[in-house]
Amino acid sequence: MISWVGGRPQRVEIPRLKPRGESRAAKRVDIADLVPEPVTYLAQAAYFQLGVFESLALAVANAPGIHAKENLSTAAGRVLAKHHGLVAEMKRRGSDPAEAMTPFAPHLDRFRTTTLGADWAELLLWCFLTAGFLDDFFIRLSAGLPSDIGPRAAQILGEDEGTHVIVTELQAAIAADPALASRLALWGRRLVGDTLLVARSAIHATGDLVSDELRIEPVFTELIAAHTRRMDSLGLTA
Amino acid sequence: MISWVGGRPQRVEIPRLKPRGESRAAKRVDIADLVPEPVTYLAQAAYFQLGVFESLALAVANAPGIHAKENLSTAAGRVLAKHHGLVAEMKRRGSDPAEAMTPFAPHLDRFRTTTLGADWAELLLWCFLTAGFLDDFFIRLSAGLPSDIGPRAAQILGEDEGTHVIVTELQAAIAADPALASRLALWGRRLVGDTLLVARSAIHATGDLVSDELRIEPVFTELIAAHTRRMDSLGLTA
Repeated sequence: MISWVGGRPQRVEIPRLKPRGESRAAKRVDIADLVPEPVTYLAQAAYFQLGVFESLALAVANAPGIHAKENLSTAAGRVLAKHHGLVAEMKRRGSDPAEAMTPFAPHLDRFRTTTLGADWAELLLWCFLTAGFLDDFFIRLSAGLPSDIGPRAAQILGEDEGTHVIVTELQAAIAADPALASRLALWGRRLVGDTLLVARSAIHATGDLVSDELRIEPVFTELIAAHTRRMDSLGLTA
Repeated sequence: MISWVGGRPQRVEIPRLKPRGESRAAKRVDIADLVPEPVTYLAQAAYFQLGVFESLALAVANAPGIHAKENLSTAAGRVLAKHHGLVAEMKRRGSDPAEAMTPFAPHLDRFRTTTLGADWAELLLWCFLTAGFLDDFFIRLSAGLPSDIGPRAAQILGEDEGTHVIVTELQAAIAADPALASRLALWGRRLVGDTLLVARSAIHATGDLVSDELRIEPVFTELIAAHTRRMDSLGLTA
């Protein structure tokens, strides 16, 4: 398991830079302050998980062997359970999940369909990197949600027992074809750029760009560091 | 829920026809007598469920709207749980599930890929009809398995809470496009023919063709009657 989150998400202190004259600059500032409304948050996180499920199901269908197919089906089931867990949270709050997810579908569909990759290995890398990055991101953001929902969302998103299967399959694919490593390294760089944009679009901007940037930057630095560790785990240069 | 199985599977008496002079003809004869070895049975049933999952995941990915996508994702999860339930039974008996499923993969893959259909409605009809038929078939066959496995397999296969979602989506698609009904009626007839062949290939023949046929025929008659009721539930002529 690769994760930069040690147990519950922690807030990041920004020690030096302070927006001029704003009293809130004296408080702890964090990306969690930029969390959207709970249902907006849940809808985006849930619809993204559904997309990861679709990608993993595609990886199941195109697996080069029955062992890989069987293992990835477990990973697909785990991700689907995360999706349904978030959907259940929306229902618990009286929202219609499909209605709530609808506004975010075109953007997330476009992200997914344009970054799925050219073959099975690139598809698996998508499942590993974008899901890893955005799970971390949404867990981090969840600290800004009401207390009856944030920890539950973080717990659902933090369930990543299926991830090691994807890593194992990718490592085997790279071992079998050394030329794959450099192609996947390039692909990973492309993916992290596009994934960052998805994360950014899920943030509720306050309108104070400088202040927002102060909140976002250190967290994104950590998310990218975690991405680098994921690449390292595959022996790929980030 | 459409199912010809009222609770636990029942044996079928064949009242009149008896193979000449065979003492076992005096006993109850049933398709359950033609059940293959437990792991062979489980491997075929499990790999078929995995194929149904792949088909449903494809239906999720190609759903015309987010409500359908969300509903079908639940059905996909249920089928995947059935697959993993059967895989767990194989492991419980000390088998390697992937290894056990391998011999049946080419045949079942060919069946699935040649019968998936030309569009989303035909794909959904595949999920409804072939899964309904073969679940019923494998449940019926399970009566011939050892008692520590047959009832468990039947229970796993009988879990079809996801089916009503598929029916609802198909009914909506037919209501929206009346011309679809006649095309799906034809497609259903094609599907039942090919599905029958899959069921037949999963039976362990005794070598006595006449005797085998006596066992198979009444059960297949019932399976086809259940298929007709499924078609009826969609307003389609079987």
